[in-house]
Amino acid sequence: MLDDTWYTEQWAGEGSAISLELKEQIHDFQSPYQRVEVFQTTRFGKLMTLDGLVMVTERDEFVYHEMLVHPAMFTHADPKRVLIIGGGDCGTLREVLKHDSVQQVDMVELDQAVTEAAALHFPTLHAASFDPRARLYFQDGIAWVADAEPGSYDVILIDSTDPVGPAQGLFSVDFYRNCQRALASGGVLAAQSESPLFHADLIRAMQRDLKAAGFNDVATVDFPQCTYPSGWWSVTIGARDGSASTFRGEGGAPPTIASRYYNAARHRGALAPAQFMLG
Amino acid sequence: MLDDTWYTEQWAGEGSAISLELKEQIHDFQSPYQRVEVFQTTRFGKLMTLDGLVMVTERDEFVYHEMLVHPAMFTHADPKRVLIIGGGDCGTLREVLKHDSVQQVDMVELDQAVTEAAALHFPTLHAASFDPRARLYFQDGIAWVADAEPGSYDVILIDSTDPVGPAQGLFSVDFYRNCQRALASGGVLAAQSESPLFHADLIRAMQRDLKAAGFNDVATVDFPQCTYPSGWWSVTIGARDGSASTFRGEGGAPPTIASRYYNAARHRGALAPAQFMLG
Repeated sequence: MLDDTWYTEQWAGEGSAISLELKEQIHDFQSPYQRVEVFQTTRFGKLMTLDGLVMVTERDEFVYHEMLVHPAMFTHADPKRVLIIGGGDCGTLREVLKHDSVQQVDMVELDQAVTEAAALHFPTLHAASFDPRARLYFQDGIAWVADAEPGSYDVILIDSTDPVGPAQGLFSVDFYRNCQRALASGGVLAAQSESPLFHADLIRAMQRDLKAAGFNDVATVDFPQCTYPSGWWSVTIGARDGSASTFRGEGGAPPTIASRYYNAARHRGALAPAQFMLG
Repeated sequence: MLDDTWYTEQWAGEGSAISLELKEQIHDFQSPYQRVEVFQTTRFGKLMTLDGLVMVTERDEFVYHEMLVHPAMFTHADPKRVLIIGGGDCGTLREVLKHDSVQQVDMVELDQAVTEAAALHFPTLHAASFDPRARLYFQDGIAWVADAEPGSYDVILIDSTDPVGPAQGLFSVDFYRNCQRALASGGVLAAQSESPLFHADLIRAMQRDLKAAGFNDVATVDFPQCTYPSGWWSVTIGARDGSASTFRGEGGAPPTIASRYYNAARHRGALAPAQFMLG
């Protein structure tokens, strides 16, 4: 048994849990939306949790953030205007800003307390917010997309928590339809879509819902994510008009982005579903 | 904190742990080599542990066993004679026997107690041992390979525990050199090679050691493995003569094997290393 120097997240309904060994808690704030905590771990760097669920650790956040962002950004022909829904820790923003084509990124995070915790404890993520191309808005992303001018974004990235509570509305046909409307011609959406091992039905539902919302094509990429439930995570891509599984690396030229996980061959490989996802 | 109805494996030296919720313990045997335990879990089916480390759960064993076996078997042109070192639960054997070309499989497991536990509690794995092509030997795999007739195997699969204790000798140039000698022309070796996140140096060392032992080419495939350390695992392939990353699916024709995880596109994708593994 682990003593109370360990943080444990039980993976709801799955009879399993991950634990990280802690040195100390360094942040604890109850926002209007959720409890925001930061811990120093022994081997995973700093850990941020929201209502007791892992959001980010310094050791493995690179995989998730790179795979949420770069497949979508390289699927689009020339992304200039990007919208991030959620992503308060600014890790997704950091990856988006690596793309020289980008002129403006709107990051719409419900809970300013998440970004404030990042500012204090994850400076290498939060630094992205100082880029002159970045605009941060602390408000409801669902309303933002509903009110967005049609065709105003090239890429929309949905960096949400699990589909319970405030994030539930981010997993719906209505929301995707508004995203579709907010995207310009050639636009691409990418949303975190949970675990292939635990939530295969959710991934299939998201693929159906994106099609129902008018997206021309959908594809899911998956990747290992040590500290998320099951250690296996996915992002589902919707292409407004073209293909969701053809990207600028297809010709053989590797997209040039400083990365630790992503590369063109990895992107191509992640587009091949495990056999059980084809059923 | 989790109470004592949970099994916990601490990932050694990594300040992290996975836990599985238990219904009951159904097997507990101290063999001359290790403690062999089996539990009924709430959501992962049955779980076998060796000295407290997860060996196999019914829920996710398919990924590991398919990815240890099929990439190697499809890299070989026509595998007839296969040697499995370890693999006492018979899951690797089950996957090998799906290949119609196979005429004989020698499974050399150090600890008969593992196979006996599988016979009692994992009948769908152990059933493979009744196939007339399978021969089970309970003895030391290192000595077996040292004594093997040169050129007597087409494929050697190393389904070992971690490189500590009895399995340590399975991670050495001397052992790989004996494997190389035991392989016939065109032969292929595949060995489990731990976690890319936790053990990247071990993977690189194994690649170097296989080359030093005379293998012509090496390649590593990786895959999500929920209940192994970090949830991300790998298998390293050595080709005695040809290429370790060209396989019978390359032409586009998908290898036909009943599988839940493996397919040709997934195999191809898994051959593309994450960016940090290229450094």
